[in-house]
Amino acid sequence: MTDALPLGSIIGILGGGQLGRMLSVAASRLGYKTHIFEPGANPPAGQVADQVTTAVYEDEAALLAFAQSVDVITYEFENIPTAALDILEAHRSIRPGREALRVSQDRITEKEFLSELGLEVAPFAAVQTADDLHAALEKIGTPSILKTRRFGYDGKGQARINSAADAAAALSDMAGSPSVLEGFVKFSHEISVIAARGLNGEVACFDPGENVHVGGILRTTTVPATLPARLRMDAVFIASRILNALEYVGVMGVELFVTGNTLVVNEIAPRVHNSGHWTQNGCAVDQFEQHIRAVVGLPLGDGKRHSDVVMENLIGDDMDKVPALLQEPHVALHLYGKAETKSGRKMGHFNRVAPSA
Amino acid sequence: MTDALPLGSIIGILGGGQLGRMLSVAASRLGYKTHIFEPGANPPAGQVADQVTTAVYEDEAALLAFAQSVDVITYEFENIPTAALDILEAHRSIRPGREALRVSQDRITEKEFLSELGLEVAPFAAVQTADDLHAALEKIGTPSILKTRRFGYDGKGQARINSAADAAAALSDMAGSPSVLEGFVKFSHEISVIAARGLNGEVACFDPGENVHVGGILRTTTVPATLPARLRMDAVFIASRILNALEYVGVMGVELFVTGNTLVVNEIAPRVHNSGHWTQNGCAVDQFEQHIRAVVGLPLGDGKRHSDVVMENLIGDDMDKVPALLQEPHVALHLYGKAETKSGRKMGHFNRVAPSA
Repeated sequence: MTDALPLGSIIGILGGGQLGRMLSVAASRLGYKTHIFEPGANPPAGQVADQVTTAVYEDEAALLAFAQSVDVITYEFENIPTAALDILEAHRSIRPGREALRVSQDRITEKEFLSELGLEVAPFAAVQTADDLHAALEKIGTPSILKTRRFGYDGKGQARINSAADAAAALSDMAGSPSVLEGFVKFSHEISVIAARGLNGEVACFDPGENVHVGGILRTTTVPATLPARLRMDAVFIASRILNALEYVGVMGVELFVTGNTLVVNEIAPRVHNSGHWTQNGCAVDQFEQHIRAVVGLPLGDGKRHSDVVMENLIGDDMDKVPALLQEPHVALHLYGKAETKSGRKMGHFNRVAPSA
Repeated sequence: MTDALPLGSIIGILGGGQLGRMLSVAASRLGYKTHIFEPGANPPAGQVADQVTTAVYEDEAALLAFAQSVDVITYEFENIPTAALDILEAHRSIRPGREALRVSQDRITEKEFLSELGLEVAPFAAVQTADDLHAALEKIGTPSILKTRRFGYDGKGQARINSAADAAAALSDMAGSPSVLEGFVKFSHEISVIAARGLNGEVACFDPGENVHVGGILRTTTVPATLPARLRMDAVFIASRILNALEYVGVMGVELFVTGNTLVVNEIAPRVHNSGHWTQNGCAVDQFEQHIRAVVGLPLGDGKRHSDVVMENLIGDDMDKVPALLQEPHVALHLYGKAETKSGRKMGHFNRVAPSA
């Protein structure tokens, strides 16, 4: 506790979406206040935050005032402009730190980092030109997937290549952005580990969740995941290795493909993660509180689960399910307060909690 | 759902303490915004609310502006001045309604209301003068307890009378306020039922909790309570009867003494209740969300419990326990963001959750 920020301290959060919103609520449970920095007007997180700054990441005066108004800075998304981080970091600690952002902002840097740790990743090759892509396809084969190196999320900035005939269209989809060709991994299912590392170096992992994606967007996470005990231990070991290598502080989402007897790291996200939302109703300390604990220097929760949970996202018109969900026993609803329902937009999620016997 | 306020509507909350704070967080989970009205500066609820009005209940312009800025009004405490309610109600619905406030604001009105419903209450008599008290003691005997009719909470405004010799001092403690002498009920323990009634008249109760008070302040609530099945059903029946008689909308705390084979109603509180905090970690829909659901016209949660819980308050220096609690498995901490720790002040609470097998 000696290094912990005192109760009542202000946590600055970059990004005012649903993750910032749930981080803000978790901070309140621990007696901290939050200040949201977000370019978009009326951010969902602002509804439950103590303060909101509406400004772009190029607004140096706003960044400076924000940094000076808070005691520590964290974020809900990894694609924060480097120049903004430089300004903020001159005044306040940013947790998780810059190294985690540097690594996770670029798919190739990330895969190289993971490989150097001895972890298995999908085969990959950098692609900028048609010649690069041709050479990469020679090496990796099809089916494979071309992705922008930076700024991709929820399946955006990705194009599948089933045969060489798809190559030109896929490259055109990248619109000239530096890209990476990734080979397909033959996996039975995807799991993720929500892992946390404290300021003092302690690591705690929640139970792995089993993820189902539809159209590149997470649909459900089920806990416990289908996973032999040995791979469950491997998953936790892999996550711990990554966090320790980065001297990470905070919660990280680590997505893993299960391929028979091994785990292949799909990607890492240096923040609270959609596949960790089940913890809100399955654990005494959820991923949001765990992240806040790490960021302010408190001891971590142990990640133990008191209930089984199936989390399901509410995307776009899924909001039509809300009236029925409100009538269903053991369903915990979490809506994000977004003004407008749009196709593909994450509007909320719900956790189906299995009662104890 | 037809009568429910649309998502994004604004719920006005009178009172900015911890109950308003947790109501505000619950509203956010359902996609609603909150506006807090509170005389004190920097209220705990304001840290997680969309808007805050700092004004006294005598400020008619502030009340009017507040009412016009919200879609419905609720409250976290029952002692709201009648004149303020009159102004607010001219513009927006107040839920729970005025009848519940009228009844619960005066201990004698409340006991008469409960008696007329055929429910058992402690023997009582109105006291204003020394002669009244003498007559009341003749009728009720000692030990008994003199309480102010209005504005009492957490043991404040109460004086115990062990023998006639204590009478004068007890009356002096009331400082001229209209009072009530209550006989002692020989009870084995106290339970409370957190009950809710929806806009459409449906009633749902959480499992009764068993309360332990120290110095007039709630210390712990344990769920499940020690209670034979028949009394468990009686408790729910009593609570339902009260809510229906008041055509109540919202959550109510009903405190009951267990005396062998019967239940005696101690008091009712027309709001979310400290003895219902366990629901935050024991149920998919907690008492705060339940109250918000009722107030906006959504269907109620069914009150089912997925885990056993022991709730314990953190009062004053109990905050010294926080470092140890942060390290304990299955403990969910809820701090209130109050700037200053004072003796007797409720600073937070924690729920010990029993994991499923």
